[in-house]
Amino acid sequence: MKTPIPEYLDEICRNARRDTSGSPAEYIPELANVDPEKTALALCTPAGKVYSTGDDEHLFTLQSASKPFIYAIALRDRGIDAIDDIIDVEPSGERFNDISVDPDNGRPRNPMINMGAITAHTLIGDPSMTPQERVDYAIACLSDFAGRDLDVNVKLRDSELTGRYRNLALAAMARSNNYITVEPEDAVWGYTTQCATQVTVRDLAVMAMTLANGGKNPITGKEVIPRQVCRRVLSVMATCGMYDAAGDWLTSAGLPAKSGVSGCIFGALPGQVGLSAFSPRLDEVGHSVRGIDMLEQCSQSMDLHLMALPAPSIDAIGSRTTSEQGSQVVEIQGALNFPTAELVLRRFEEIPASDCEVVVDLALVPRINDVGERMLREGIARLSRDGHAITLIDPHGRIPNPRSHDRAAIPVLEDVADYLEEDEYLEDNIDLITDTVADSATDSPTRAKNQADSTGEADA
Amino acid sequence: MKTPIPEYLDEICRNARRDTSGSPAEYIPELANVDPEKTALALCTPAGKVYSTGDDEHLFTLQSASKPFIYAIALRDRGIDAIDDIIDVEPSGERFNDISVDPDNGRPRNPMINMGAITAHTLIGDPSMTPQERVDYAIACLSDFAGRDLDVNVKLRDSELTGRYRNLALAAMARSNNYITVEPEDAVWGYTTQCATQVTVRDLAVMAMTLANGGKNPITGKEVIPRQVCRRVLSVMATCGMYDAAGDWLTSAGLPAKSGVSGCIFGALPGQVGLSAFSPRLDEVGHSVRGIDMLEQCSQSMDLHLMALPAPSIDAIGSRTTSEQGSQVVEIQGALNFPTAELVLRRFEEIPASDCEVVVDLALVPRINDVGERMLREGIARLSRDGHAITLIDPHGRIPNPRSHDRAAIPVLEDVADYLEEDEYLEDNIDLITDTVADSATDSPTRAKNQADSTGEADA
Amino acid sequence: MKTPIPEYLDEICRNARRDTSGSPAEYIPELANVDPEKTALALCTPAGKVYSTGDDEHLFTLQSASKPFIYAIALRDRGIDAIDDIIDVEPSGERFNDISVDPDNGRPRNPMINMGAITAHTLIGDPSMTPQERVDYAIACLSDFAGRDLDVNVKLRDSELTGRYRNLALAAMARSNNYITVEPEDAVWGYTTQCATQVTVRDLAVMAMTLANGGKNPITGKEVIPRQVCRRVLSVMATCGMYDAAGDWLTSAGLPAKSGVSGCIFGALPGQVGLSAFSPRLDEVGHSVRGIDMLEQCSQSMDLHLMALPAPSIDAIGSRTTSEQGSQVVEIQGALNFPTAELVLRRFEEIPASDCEVVVDLALVPRINDVGERMLREGIARLSRDGHAITLIDPHGRIPNPRSHDRAAIPVLEDVADYLEEDEYLEDNIDLITDTVADSATDSPTRAKNQADSTGEADA
Amino acid sequence: MKTPIPEYLDEICRNARRDTSGSPAEYIPELANVDPEKTALALCTPAGKVYSTGDDEHLFTLQSASKPFIYAIALRDRGIDAIDDIIDVEPSGERFNDISVDPDNGRPRNPMINMGAITAHTLIGDPSMTPQERVDYAIACLSDFAGRDLDVNVKLRDSELTGRYRNLALAAMARSNNYITVEPEDAVWGYTTQCATQVTVRDLAVMAMTLANGGKNPITGKEVIPRQVCRRVLSVMATCGMYDAAGDWLTSAGLPAKSGVSGCIFGALPGQVGLSAFSPRLDEVGHSVRGIDMLEQCSQSMDLHLMALPAPSIDAIGSRTTSEQGSQVVEIQGALNFPTAELVLRRFEEIPASDCEVVVDLALVPRINDVGERMLREGIARLSRDGHAITLIDPHGRIPNPRSHDRAAIPVLEDVADYLEEDEYLEDNIDLITDTVADSATDSPTRAKNQADSTGEADA
Repeated sequence: MKTPIPEYLDEICRNARRDTSGSPAEYIPELANVDPEKTALALCTPAGKVYSTGDDEHLFTLQSASKPFIYAIALRDRGIDAIDDIIDVEPSGERFNDISVDPDNGRPRNPMINMGAITAHTLIGDPSMTPQERVDYAIACLSDFAGRDLDVNVKLRDSELTGRYRNLALAAMARSNNYITVEPEDAVWGYTTQCATQVTVRDLAVMAMTLANGGKNPITGKEVIPRQVCRRVLSVMATCGMYDAAGDWLTSAGLPAKSGVSGCIFGALPGQVGLSAFSPRLDEVGHSVRGIDMLEQCSQSMDLHLMALPAPSIDAIGSRTTSEQGSQVVEIQGALNFPTAELVLRRFEEIPASDCEVVVDLALVPRINDVGERMLREGIARLSRDGHAITLIDPHGRIPNPRSHDRAAIPVLEDVADYLEEDEYLEDNIDLITDTVADSATDSPTRAKNQADSTGEADA
Repeated sequence: MKTPIPEYLDEICRNARRDTSGSPAEYIPELANVDPEKTALALCTPAGKVYSTGDDEHLFTLQSASKPFIYAIALRDRGIDAIDDIIDVEPSGERFNDISVDPDNGRPRNPMINMGAITAHTLIGDPSMTPQERVDYAIACLSDFAGRDLDVNVKLRDSELTGRYRNLALAAMARSNNYITVEPEDAVWGYTTQCATQVTVRDLAVMAMTLANGGKNPITGKEVIPRQVCRRVLSVMATCGMYDAAGDWLTSAGLPAKSGVSGCIFGALPGQVGLSAFSPRLDEVGHSVRGIDMLEQCSQSMDLHLMALPAPSIDAIGSRTTSEQGSQVVEIQGALNFPTAELVLRRFEEIPASDCEVVVDLALVPRINDVGERMLREGIARLSRDGHAITLIDPHGRIPNPRSHDRAAIPVLEDVADYLEEDEYLEDNIDLITDTVADSATDSPTRAKNQADSTGEADA
Repeated sequence: MKTPIPEYLDEICRNARRDTSGSPAEYIPELANVDPEKTALALCTPAGKVYSTGDDEHLFTLQSASKPFIYAIALRDRGIDAIDDIIDVEPSGERFNDISVDPDNGRPRNPMINMGAITAHTLIGDPSMTPQERVDYAIACLSDFAGRDLDVNVKLRDSELTGRYRNLALAAMARSNNYITVEPEDAVWGYTTQCATQVTVRDLAVMAMTLANGGKNPITGKEVIPRQVCRRVLSVMATCGMYDAAGDWLTSAGLPAKSGVSGCIFGALPGQVGLSAFSPRLDEVGHSVRGIDMLEQCSQSMDLHLMALPAPSIDAIGSRTTSEQGSQVVEIQGALNFPTAELVLRRFEEIPASDCEVVVDLALVPRINDVGERMLREGIARLSRDGHAITLIDPHGRIPNPRSHDRAAIPVLEDVADYLEEDEYLEDNIDLITDTVADSATDSPTRAKNQADSTGEADA
Repeated sequence: MKTPIPEYLDEICRNARRDTSGSPAEYIPELANVDPEKTALALCTPAGKVYSTGDDEHLFTLQSASKPFIYAIALRDRGIDAIDDIIDVEPSGERFNDISVDPDNGRPRNPMINMGAITAHTLIGDPSMTPQERVDYAIACLSDFAGRDLDVNVKLRDSELTGRYRNLALAAMARSNNYITVEPEDAVWGYTTQCATQVTVRDLAVMAMTLANGGKNPITGKEVIPRQVCRRVLSVMATCGMYDAAGDWLTSAGLPAKSGVSGCIFGALPGQVGLSAFSPRLDEVGHSVRGIDMLEQCSQSMDLHLMALPAPSIDAIGSRTTSEQGSQVVEIQGALNFPTAELVLRRFEEIPASDCEVVVDLALVPRINDVGERMLREGIARLSRDGHAITLIDPHGRIPNPRSHDRAAIPVLEDVADYLEEDEYLEDNIDLITDTVADSATDSPTRAKNQADSTGEADA
């Protein structure tokens, strides 16, 4: 069978395209002249699987979406306490183009506003770096988050620099208060270059998932930033990431998120998902209209919200093959929500189309939420379309009235023992899904195999 | 064995008592004359188990800690959209005693500041209620959160009212902009009474857990507020709950929280824990010095942080008794962190001191974090002190080098089958831990029994 | 002859009537239902002469225009230092309906915003006064400024009180910070009553001139407030009187001024003039559209600006009658601008229409400004129309090419001795114009006579 | 006799020296290393007479005291309306180091804060000027105000530039909003150079008097700026000149004023006086401690306050010499306050020490204030010390109980005719004191002579 998740994303993207309000940023030709209809959406799982739809090969610049990543690098390189002395973490309660500083000492209010972000750029790497070295280093770090080598749109960067005066003002202000120690023009040049780093929505979803994954890139496995830094960055995104709409965004979408004036936006839900969307039409505060819409649709339809009851990860999926009948028994252990159901669907995908029976055992599924149920129903329907006869072991009634693709009832049993009438040999193959951010030493071989797979897909 | 969790809390409380900075609120004698050394801490689990330490029978008034609950009731009674038109959800970025309104229309910035909270009080129940009826209703709603009938400290309330002018100003301001439609004096009287509702830390921990539990009281099982309302309230607490230190608090403690000037504070981590602390010594912004300290200690030592990778709930604990040897086999399924390890320890507690062997099977534990490992080690040591011989089934090495209470090595096997050498009869008793906030229809009998137990304990 | 000044005012008033923008305040029917075309203008001189035009008998309520006077009374009654501790004197830089307090201590920013004005009301008279006594006292004080007994529009006051909540908020805020010590409702009641005191533009011009006159009523001669208090009040009006447009107003009109939402406005130029205008059409910040226009026209056409080079008062006007020919010699000593030329015109007015010659001696006029020259030319033309032959003594060329009413050239001589060809007897009658605010002991009898005259006119 | 005015200034300066609080600006060595005890005070009259005391030859840099003058030049060169579109005139209500812009459009709030002043610098002269040409032009304009060629302290300027970042931020901010159109670094360089222009207190007093004199330099007679521009600049100084203490300063000192961080301060009272003081000890907001003190002493002891009743200028002083006895008759016409009494004292100074009698005729003095009376008494006492017998003609009792230097009573007569018993020949020499800002065509020869004198003295 083919997993339905891409189709879910397609639908969300299609819905979003109906909204033709907003228009691209106009302050430089390189942004103003982009095709306003470009629209893309991507989702990356803790296991590094990337789903995407729309113009997912389209390259755009990160702009402000680069801020959380570079802030993370600064925290990693100089230490949380040292950075805290220089950049505060309080919401500004103000518009995105305000000079937002602590009135007592001029300290930038947070790393998501421009002054804080320019300051953060100057605090990555070694203090002795030249401006060029620091920029190269920044791009390398962003590449670590993305899991591939990124490059800079130099023409766009140069165009941005002709209108750099506001940022120059912020850098000079930070310099005057000694929060920046390099020349303001150098800081602005470096920051502007960082902002011009180009990615696709697939890249940005991986970058988001790296933050949601405790700092470990879900594809390359590289630990880009420590877990404590990750926690800090996500917290700051939650309170300060969406400018003065932080409160509204956190209540509605519930995702630590950050947007860029190019039209991109990403969200990171710890342990669960990295989301990324792109569309150049901006609303009056500079957020992508469709991007916001797509992330909110994802959050709502997949119940991806920071304040949702904690997303119980799937812990184990056992697939056993009965010795005689050749039936596949898929034994699911753990609660089912979006990220865990996604793992189940991927296991279903591995079952070749054939006439073998498939037994789905939900005896050890303690709970399932709406999106989990929908996904499982869809997976069962698709397996049946592939020619499999399906039997459900569902003593707790997790999937009431299960149906095949042609609306036929699917048999439900209380216990897998009712299916396996006699003492059969079962080739047991329980995969224990380990903590995706645990030390690599504890990773199971199976997990490593998953990563290799998804890396392949992500690179395609 | 006896669970070590109370001792964890004792230690945190003991640490906090060392800090003698701050002093009680002085604006009314009833607050100023409280014993400044009173200190208490409580923790409530999703299953309704309440642990507490210190002066946990001491009654204090909720004060501002009542705000999130009454806001929740207003959202429930009038609908989220209707309340959003009247009370904004943006952080104010200002001090706790500022008049924080939207400069364009005078709308209260959020329900955690006084103007928003007074407004919220007027929006609960039926618009036709008299002031007295509204107050009675408010106390009843707070009682629903606590799971027992609360009452009001009338003397303290009356004392507060003599200095009510600031709140009167806020109510009159909201009245002048038509956000409040009752008489300002009535609104202030009702709100002040609400604030004078008395609880213990145990009550407040249950109230917190109700918010962390999707709105369902973990002890009584009553669905006080809908899940969507709960999500909204927690989101607003996360961005606006700790006044102008919201950003700092969310990054350090990572708990949606709210404090009261009486010295109380509570935090709610969705699906995981309700925490509450009390100590009248206040810092300069009006937070309890020791209360903040205790919550931060809990957050750090138990890894209770909103941005921690999602707390995988324990899904099943199987305990089997071997037919012949009478050994207890405790089979754990699911990842182990604080809330799930707490469940394991409670299962250990049920094993009577005896010389029977106890087998702890970790084969289906996909991951364990620091606090989970510490708790499990402690539980094993205590079981051994009770006289049990312990065997660990730990094919993934979750607990390296396990030790008994007297530092003796505990035998570790790869598979439970290695222990059960022959085909034995096992009395199987797998408890599937269902979603604590699921419809009661799906609650397992075992779960219901847990609730009964914990209710008993909570009431004790 | 008849003085042309009323005609000047007529023209200004006529010009202003052309502007039909703005509309009356709508928050209470008593203000909304006023005839929007009512328009009036009045001017009072240091000698107590009141000129007026338009609907100058129409009664309106003072509203915020009462603020400077009551602030003055508070300064007088409690002392400048005591009041300074309670009400600051800094411009708020904010809109007229902001809560403008010192962020450090909640002190009202100045006495021209509502919070400061309500506070000022509570600080007049004896601290032991009842609310009714304090209101009676306030009206009595306002009557002292006006020179006649004023009364209150009780119906309008009661209507205002139904929407008192914003002011109640301000009073309660001031009460909470102990700047007000009476009950907030009492303070608002008293302040609202004060604001409902009724006057005509003529009254308000006299009140303005009292401030411009060092605190001494120019008609009754009563010293309402000391000179130091007067200076303080005018200074505060200059920086804080016109809300956030203080800077713009001071640069354009250059008059310490204050307006009321009823449509009135007054301006006071120290030592020179009290101005008052009325028209209920308000602009978006609550100033009378035509009122502003009329005051600006007065300021510009009469060169009445605080930063104008100092208005040299006329010091002496000598009128001598030649013994033989019966010619009138008007000898002017001192520089000529609006207030001094006004005195000259009033002296001209006293010359009965006849065929006697009039000699105007400008030998001791050191300088004359544009408005002074225009007024003198007009006076000369009118005298000639009355039948007088005119001769000008003008050695310094103050009035080049003087003309009679029928454009005939008027003879100009270098020295009065050239006119008085032989040694004649002159009945000398030099009036020395003393400082209008000097101790009454130094007032000349002539001056007293002027006052009596103008009092009569003002009362008519 | 010798005029006592220098002694008045000496005393004020001596008083001020007692205050040793505050310390010089420390941000650059050139300011930090100045002798903190340097103290100077100067006063310039409308006739161009400069009095000074203390370290009046000490050169200091203008710093922010240059702002009003350069703003005046911009208004002159580009027109008031054009500049108003770029720089607002509202008080900022904020501290001196805030970025104070209109929140709607980023327009600088006023020309007295740094952003407005830097912007003003870029708006003088021709838009095509190079940075160097603009600086040369600025210095030339400042020289016009001072009446002599000023130069720049280049070393200090260069030192300031090393810490230019705050100003660079402001210039870049103004550039980003298109209020500045040159490169920010050029704007800052030019502004910093302007600020480093060196003057003495005597220069600055002349500059102040030029503003107080309608824009005409009282010494050179050059009309530096038009009268309307002058009025605008003084208005803006009154509301915005002393940062957030504008309200307090205007009520206490009552002088449009501006200070510089070098320790200088100047005040300008229209038509009356230019004052300047210097002392490097600064208070916490950057004002010269002793400078503020000296200006306030001047304001109080000489009754120099914007809201004082208008200062009646002396209009004529007649000095006649009796034909036979050789007595000097000094006939004073006009009211006496500081600036007019100063003219009388200078006339007294011209009387050579001898035994001739001096008759002081006050018959045409309509009023006299405290400072005028003190000054006249002092002048009379000094004339008596010089050997003159004095007679006072004082029908109105302006100087009760006049005394000679040795406390002897001075004879007082009612009428000068009582002195001149018989018909004598009087050499008449009445000087008509014309408006100092009138067209030069109306200047009397006497006046021209005064100017020449004072120019000589000022240059000495």
